[in-house]
Amino acid sequence: MIVRDRPHGLALFFAMRGSVLPSILPALAVNVLFAGIVTVLHGEFLDHKIQVTTVPFSLIGLALAIFLGFRNSAAYDRYWEGRKLWGEMVHASRSWARGVMCYPTNHGEASAGPGRRSMVMTVAAMVHALRHQLRGTDARADLVRCLGDEAASQVVRRRNMPAALLQQAGQGLGAWLHSGQLDPQLAATMENRLAELTACAAGCERIASTPIPFAYTLLLHRTAYIYCFLLPFGLVDTLHGLTPLVVGLVAYTFFGLDALGDEIEDPFGTKLNHLPLDALCVTIETSLREALGEENLPAPPQAERYVLT
Amino acid sequence: MIVRDRPHGLALFFAMRGSVLPSILPALAVNVLFAGIVTVLHGEFLDHKIQVTTVPFSLIGLALAIFLGFRNSAAYDRYWEGRKLWGEMVHASRSWARGVMCYPTNHGEASAGPGRRSMVMTVAAMVHALRHQLRGTDARADLVRCLGDEAASQVVRRRNMPAALLQQAGQGLGAWLHSGQLDPQLAATMENRLAELTACAAGCERIASTPIPFAYTLLLHRTAYIYCFLLPFGLVDTLHGLTPLVVGLVAYTFFGLDALGDEIEDPFGTKLNHLPLDALCVTIETSLREALGEENLPAPPQAERYVLT
Amino acid sequence: MIVRDRPHGLALFFAMRGSVLPSILPALAVNVLFAGIVTVLHGEFLDHKIQVTTVPFSLIGLALAIFLGFRNSAAYDRYWEGRKLWGEMVHASRSWARGVMCYPTNHGEASAGPGRRSMVMTVAAMVHALRHQLRGTDARADLVRCLGDEAASQVVRRRNMPAALLQQAGQGLGAWLHSGQLDPQLAATMENRLAELTACAAGCERIASTPIPFAYTLLLHRTAYIYCFLLPFGLVDTLHGLTPLVVGLVAYTFFGLDALGDEIEDPFGTKLNHLPLDALCVTIETSLREALGEENLPAPPQAERYVLT
Amino acid sequence: MIVRDRPHGLALFFAMRGSVLPSILPALAVNVLFAGIVTVLHGEFLDHKIQVTTVPFSLIGLALAIFLGFRNSAAYDRYWEGRKLWGEMVHASRSWARGVMCYPTNHGEASAGPGRRSMVMTVAAMVHALRHQLRGTDARADLVRCLGDEAASQVVRRRNMPAALLQQAGQGLGAWLHSGQLDPQLAATMENRLAELTACAAGCERIASTPIPFAYTLLLHRTAYIYCFLLPFGLVDTLHGLTPLVVGLVAYTFFGLDALGDEIEDPFGTKLNHLPLDALCVTIETSLREALGEENLPAPPQAERYVLT
Amino acid sequence: MIVRDRPHGLALFFAMRGSVLPSILPALAVNVLFAGIVTVLHGEFLDHKIQVTTVPFSLIGLALAIFLGFRNSAAYDRYWEGRKLWGEMVHASRSWARGVMCYPTNHGEASAGPGRRSMVMTVAAMVHALRHQLRGTDARADLVRCLGDEAASQVVRRRNMPAALLQQAGQGLGAWLHSGQLDPQLAATMENRLAELTACAAGCERIASTPIPFAYTLLLHRTAYIYCFLLPFGLVDTLHGLTPLVVGLVAYTFFGLDALGDEIEDPFGTKLNHLPLDALCVTIETSLREALGEENLPAPPQAERYVLT
Repeated sequence: MIVRDRPHGLALFFAMRGSVLPSILPALAVNVLFAGIVTVLHGEFLDHKIQVTTVPFSLIGLALAIFLGFRNSAAYDRYWEGRKLWGEMVHASRSWARGVMCYPTNHGEASAGPGRRSMVMTVAAMVHALRHQLRGTDARADLVRCLGDEAASQVVRRRNMPAALLQQAGQGLGAWLHSGQLDPQLAATMENRLAELTACAAGCERIASTPIPFAYTLLLHRTAYIYCFLLPFGLVDTLHGLTPLVVGLVAYTFFGLDALGDEIEDPFGTKLNHLPLDALCVTIETSLREALGEENLPAPPQAERYVLT
Repeated sequence: MIVRDRPHGLALFFAMRGSVLPSILPALAVNVLFAGIVTVLHGEFLDHKIQVTTVPFSLIGLALAIFLGFRNSAAYDRYWEGRKLWGEMVHASRSWARGVMCYPTNHGEASAGPGRRSMVMTVAAMVHALRHQLRGTDARADLVRCLGDEAASQVVRRRNMPAALLQQAGQGLGAWLHSGQLDPQLAATMENRLAELTACAAGCERIASTPIPFAYTLLLHRTAYIYCFLLPFGLVDTLHGLTPLVVGLVAYTFFGLDALGDEIEDPFGTKLNHLPLDALCVTIETSLREALGEENLPAPPQAERYVLT
Repeated sequence: MIVRDRPHGLALFFAMRGSVLPSILPALAVNVLFAGIVTVLHGEFLDHKIQVTTVPFSLIGLALAIFLGFRNSAAYDRYWEGRKLWGEMVHASRSWARGVMCYPTNHGEASAGPGRRSMVMTVAAMVHALRHQLRGTDARADLVRCLGDEAASQVVRRRNMPAALLQQAGQGLGAWLHSGQLDPQLAATMENRLAELTACAAGCERIASTPIPFAYTLLLHRTAYIYCFLLPFGLVDTLHGLTPLVVGLVAYTFFGLDALGDEIEDPFGTKLNHLPLDALCVTIETSLREALGEENLPAPPQAERYVLT
Repeated sequence: MIVRDRPHGLALFFAMRGSVLPSILPALAVNVLFAGIVTVLHGEFLDHKIQVTTVPFSLIGLALAIFLGFRNSAAYDRYWEGRKLWGEMVHASRSWARGVMCYPTNHGEASAGPGRRSMVMTVAAMVHALRHQLRGTDARADLVRCLGDEAASQVVRRRNMPAALLQQAGQGLGAWLHSGQLDPQLAATMENRLAELTACAAGCERIASTPIPFAYTLLLHRTAYIYCFLLPFGLVDTLHGLTPLVVGLVAYTFFGLDALGDEIEDPFGTKLNHLPLDALCVTIETSLREALGEENLPAPPQAERYVLT
Repeated sequence: MIVRDRPHGLALFFAMRGSVLPSILPALAVNVLFAGIVTVLHGEFLDHKIQVTTVPFSLIGLALAIFLGFRNSAAYDRYWEGRKLWGEMVHASRSWARGVMCYPTNHGEASAGPGRRSMVMTVAAMVHALRHQLRGTDARADLVRCLGDEAASQVVRRRNMPAALLQQAGQGLGAWLHSGQLDPQLAATMENRLAELTACAAGCERIASTPIPFAYTLLLHRTAYIYCFLLPFGLVDTLHGLTPLVVGLVAYTFFGLDALGDEIEDPFGTKLNHLPLDALCVTIETSLREALGEENLPAPPQAERYVLT
């Protein structure tokens, strides 16, 4: 995620980090070059003048506007829903920690079921495991830090690690419940926190595994490309030498919107405009460690060259 | 569901799988042919010149834009709500499994009520039954795999199989509760999971049985067709020979959007852009089997030629 | 509700059932006739040429587009919210039935409180009562079928029958609770189902009693009418004899959208595009009877000439 | 709230009650008069011809369309959320009444805690108190009717009357709980109803105290006014004598949309298009009295000259 | 937050407080000046006439409209979600206070766990702490007033003060639970209030830490600036001397919308259109003090020169 204030004045036009410009540059260059050729030939190919009035552009533009507006909203909704799910994990894990620290009775803690620290860190490990699952990276190091070597080894063999860790937390809860350390009512409340975390994990899987229907993407790309490559024929007779410039501007906004939708539609990756899952995991782990009363908390995540990963 | 990266460059124009092009090809061909005839005749029929300016197109285009935008959103919302409901079934079933594995006491399990495995697999069977109900296919094979032959035979005779299976799970819960194996508070929490699954099933039925009001579909189809078939008369005088091409492009986007809405409006079918219910059911069953501690889990569902069913 | 596949080809233009055409025909006919008169007179009244350029149409069209788009969405949201509320009644009533069948202990059932069948059928009666209240029809026959003659007579004297029936179900729950047949925790869970049904009933009342603010409807109707009746003056000089046709097309889409909003804004009536409350009630009653173990279930509701009431 | 069917034909143009016309008449008259002066002078002031093409209108019109559409939706969302909150109060109060009537045991009712009637009427009083708070009117008469003279006197001295009444209901609940008349589980369920009512009251306060950001309103008003007062210069050369008429029509729709947003943005007042809080309070009180078994219920609220207050 | 009625007539154009005009004045001035230069030079630079028709403006305008509409909605949604979260804190804290005052038994209050006043004021302190965290100000004074000097000192050393205070409240709840003063069921209900407050705090953090993706902001700014600086070339040939005026009007609306989005996107600051967190905290603290039975309540917050902070 890019974290910076809005650049002002001319700096606005030279900000590259976080811009979609790099990813659309090839298509944009081809398009402008094509517009240049059309301008030089005055729209004539093989002695045949290809003349398109502006009428088709407003007609196709109508459909294009519907597409771009729709896809834009759909992609951003996915981005924001992804962020909301991680925000829910922030508070569900904090409420879980509060429950672990406040509601079981103290006596007998050593004798039955897991310790409080272990219960809290299991949830911290679950959050890391979900992040690694979404990004296809290796969760082992984070799991070892949270759970210790042995427990981590058992977890990494499971196919769905977040679910396995939540089940482990549930087993701890069951042990506390059966030994009488935790009132059934409060156990049920805490099970609801685990259910919320389960729901967040399933929600993230849903967003990651279900793209916007491919036919939309295809129809939108096709319409945008045809539109922008026809454009020089429609403009060359009135704009003459300015045609490539104007075509470039129009294509920049349309290709840019399109590419931006592609980028934020799947918000859990590691591109510049994706969600900062690393930072969110650090935040959650820090909160949980603070709830446990630890003193040496990790440093808050810092953006590096405007980017938080 | 189509699962593939966005094709680049010219490949973009030749991707057919998942495109709506095949389903609109007949109407599109007729429209372009008609535009060709109008072009050849210069808009004259029986020595009478039919001349339409572009004014009506921007007027009707206004209404058409409202329609297409509205229906597009409504159809996609249904698609995404369907996906969310299946996502909820993913987490409700996982939380159910966690409850079954963690909260009943062990003693006496053999003596009263069903075993844990049977309780978990009843929910797996329910998910398969719902899929078969939505797609109108035969649930028997999946039910036998999950429940055994005898139990499956009883279920298939019920009219609403998912509801019957959830009631069966509820009866198991009641047996555990009455025999004292499960605390009433935790039983209530687990009943809430069953209620969530009931809600998901009812939500899917709702989407499957209630289309977007027919009058909308009708008004939209009619407006789009009239618009595209009038178009050649409005363009022929300024575009001459390019008329069929431009009419084809405009009709492609309008008919395409329309057909896409038709396709994803009812997302539980087996068309290319529909939801991959088979894969989702395998995912759920695998999760539940892993929660039970099974080792030989089914392979994760794989897309075949970009398609996940 | 109209239940049919999309008609293809020319059949599309002759489908009348479910179309809004009948309800807008008078206004449409007057408008086209008026356009015909303007065409014949070439826009001259009393030797005075009334000439309107297309400029005002794009200006007013802007406001009209905002109106139509807004009202369209608002009306459809009401329709879909109405459908969702009935979908919630489907699952809340099924979960209620599961609760009644699974969680009270068997012993002493005859001695204290109502029987299970009576508890389930009270909710079936409530659903019918709500439908009759929303449509202003007589609930007596349905109540007698569900509750018996005597109990039905008591209910019909109440002003708010659904609330009275839910209170009756609550009293049964209280009786089970006080006699120790039902655990307080499960009783609370089942009371939550009654609260959901109460919420659905109140939601339906809300939609039925609160129209979209009248000033919107008024402003929209007025703008649409003025727009369509001014249109011939703006078109006659460029379209000549085609003016009535084009005016008719534009008016068809605008009046049609407007009339459709009027129709689905209040979705609980008995018009063709309204929700099929009769069928939904049969579905709910059938589900409940199946949960009770009854064998002779009512036939599933069938559309008659494409219409489900 | 205006409650009437849509007027047809010419009656549509003479319906004044509920129309925004009266509130925009001054600005509209000034605008039309100004357009008349511009028409008479042919756009010339001090021998200088002020000529504006239609280009700026489509450019500013773009921004105006975004504004009007956005503000329209935001204002209607506030209106509808306000209605939803009151709908939630309808069902939360009914579920509260069901709880009071069904779940406490009868024995000892006289000896500990408040009577059932007092518990139910406290919530009726809370609803009235919220309405009076939102409208800035005097709650005393309604409180006396619901609670009696003495209790009402104590309540009116509190700053936040609805919160005080809900706390009073909570104290009754606590008394029933501590005396063993009500199971803790059911007490918790009923406390959740009180929490819902607290949430509704806070939601209404939120809408009443937080307008749409003032800068939006300002920017929208300014743009709409500049647009409509520049319009005559853009139209006078092509429309001549029809200029004031067309300016009046455009201004009517733009000023009307704007004024309508102003009106329904704060939906708890007593203007014609505001929510009928009086009627809703009568509905709630009637429901609660019927739940108590009272026979002489108040008459249902009736619209007077199409208006429900 | 600006709290004032809509100014009428000419006053509308001179209202500056709350307007975005001051923040866009520099860019606006440069743009108008540039338009003036273009006008004087008749669009000729170095004897070369730069002529742009209006075609590109409608094409780019299309993308700009999508952008502005999208970003406007996204920014306002963030604003309104922020307000909703604070509204939830209002009612969750009131329900917490009701729980503290009504449901624990009185006996033994002095002997075990914190007093009621301390439990209520801990939540008041949490609300202040969240506000100071969001605005980066010093929470000490408010914490001392709510908690006393000593307790405040302990809290301010914690990194996440709101979470620490909620954990403290949870510990009080645990003490009441373990000493038998509070029924477990009611304790669970009250823990749910703490979970709601945790969720609100996490929601506010989410909005504050996650801006709208930077690439959107960048693309929008760039498009709007290019659009407005090209505009004089498109207008100078038809509008002549009026060009700077019209460019100024168009730029005012586009830059204004853009700047307004920037401002309300992050609604927890102290700018004029931000949320009045100070006033909300006073409202919450007053509610809680009134629930405790205090008589000398703070004065309700008053707007100063139309501004509530």
